[in-house]
Amino acid sequence: MAEMDTKALRNVSYGLYIVTSGDASRRNGQIANTSFQVTSQPATVAVSINKQNLTHEIIEQCQAFGVSVLEESTPMPFIGLFGFKSGRDLDKFASVQADTGATGCPLVIDHAIAVFEAKVVAKLDAGSHTVFLGELVSCRVLKKAEPLTYAKYHQNKGKEPKTAPTYSPPEAAAAEKQGAAPVKKYVCSVCGWAYDPAKGDPDGGIAPGTPFEQIPASWVCPVCGAGKADFALQ
Amino acid sequence: MAEMDTKALRNVSYGLYIVTSGDASRRNGQIANTSFQVTSQPATVAVSINKQNLTHEIIEQCQAFGVSVLEESTPMPFIGLFGFKSGRDLDKFASVQADTGATGCPLVIDHAIAVFEAKVVAKLDAGSHTVFLGELVSCRVLKKAEPLTYAKYHQNKGKEPKTAPTYSPPEAAAAEKQGAAPVKKYVCSVCGWAYDPAKGDPDGGIAPGTPFEQIPASWVCPVCGAGKADFALQ
Repeated sequence: MAEMDTKALRNVSYGLYIVTSGDASRRNGQIANTSFQVTSQPATVAVSINKQNLTHEIIEQCQAFGVSVLEESTPMPFIGLFGFKSGRDLDKFASVQADTGATGCPLVIDHAIAVFEAKVVAKLDAGSHTVFLGELVSCRVLKKAEPLTYAKYHQNKGKEPKTAPTYSPPEAAAAEKQGAAPVKKYVCSVCGWAYDPAKGDPDGGIAPGTPFEQIPASWVCPVCGAGKADFALQ
Repeated sequence: MAEMDTKALRNVSYGLYIVTSGDASRRNGQIANTSFQVTSQPATVAVSINKQNLTHEIIEQCQAFGVSVLEESTPMPFIGLFGFKSGRDLDKFASVQADTGATGCPLVIDHAIAVFEAKVVAKLDAGSHTVFLGELVSCRVLKKAEPLTYAKYHQNKGKEPKTAPTYSPPEAAAAEKQGAAPVKKYVCSVCGWAYDPAKGDPDGGIAPGTPFEQIPASWVCPVCGAGKADFALQ
């Protein structure tokens, strides 16, 4: 029996992108880690998109897609907006700076170091996903900065507790070690981020030491923008 | 007219891999920067391979491929062997540690932190390249180390003059600035690496200060392994 330790796949390197599509009547964008150049003559690029996503539906309709290469310093809530929310529920572009490309696709400019767009010329049905191959239509450098890599994104989450969906507060871990009951915490049901009362959410106006119950109802999850009502005690 | 600054594509992130294929009668492997997971249920991975390469021919024949994820410290001559040489001219595996996978594919173990292999289930014709989609057959972690990224590979070459195909010795640049005749240098016709007499090739047993003419005929290019006779004065 051949060994099948899929952790091996975690060593594959990726960037982090917003893949977009749309026209005058509808538009959407989503976080994707798979975008790559395939050929140089002519220049073609590919993206891999889950068939269940709205962006997939719109690419099929418009036969074009845009790609924004995110900068290393992209804030987690921005990634949360495009990665943890569905365009079926909200217009992701409402609070975001975007251009309209030559194909009619929206192109996200905020936190992008480069944008390009392509006209679909072929596609590969891969079961749950489609790999769309596109011929480059436009291509633009926006600023000089390091691109965000998937590895760096995971690393940031590890270092920045408030952005970590899988974060376990040190207090809870220590208590568990000592045989005490684990500390219950409020967890975002959209993205999995756990609120730590000791740290609060200073960027969101919540002082360290604030119990979850005392947070105003207008407060939103700093990772994905979900509302306070989307949090549950775990 | 839409802007077309293809430098934008340089911001896309890649890893560095050896993609292999073969069976008992023939085998080959090559450097590739495009390897990625496409779906998780079932687990599929894809690679993009130039149609002119021997590895492409063998994947078509064997309908399977292997991928070795290279570690960050992979030496440039090892990359040179798989990246700048053709398996039509030599057996790349002659001096390399490799296993035979469940598909019959050779799997390069040297400098690999993870290896996986896949049976081709679909392919996308992309002109000069083919994107092969494969269902995972085996998957193994070999060691804990950082993967080599394409960005890091380029950075290394920038910092390590002797591994830089596009390297211009500071002496030559300074001489040119002062209006003097540019310093002629011996350049590897296989990979473009330039020999710098001031630096020599200590790893290859050539002391700093050795003129190219005094290097023994058995010496090989530290980047790609080409022979001394493959160097030409430029």
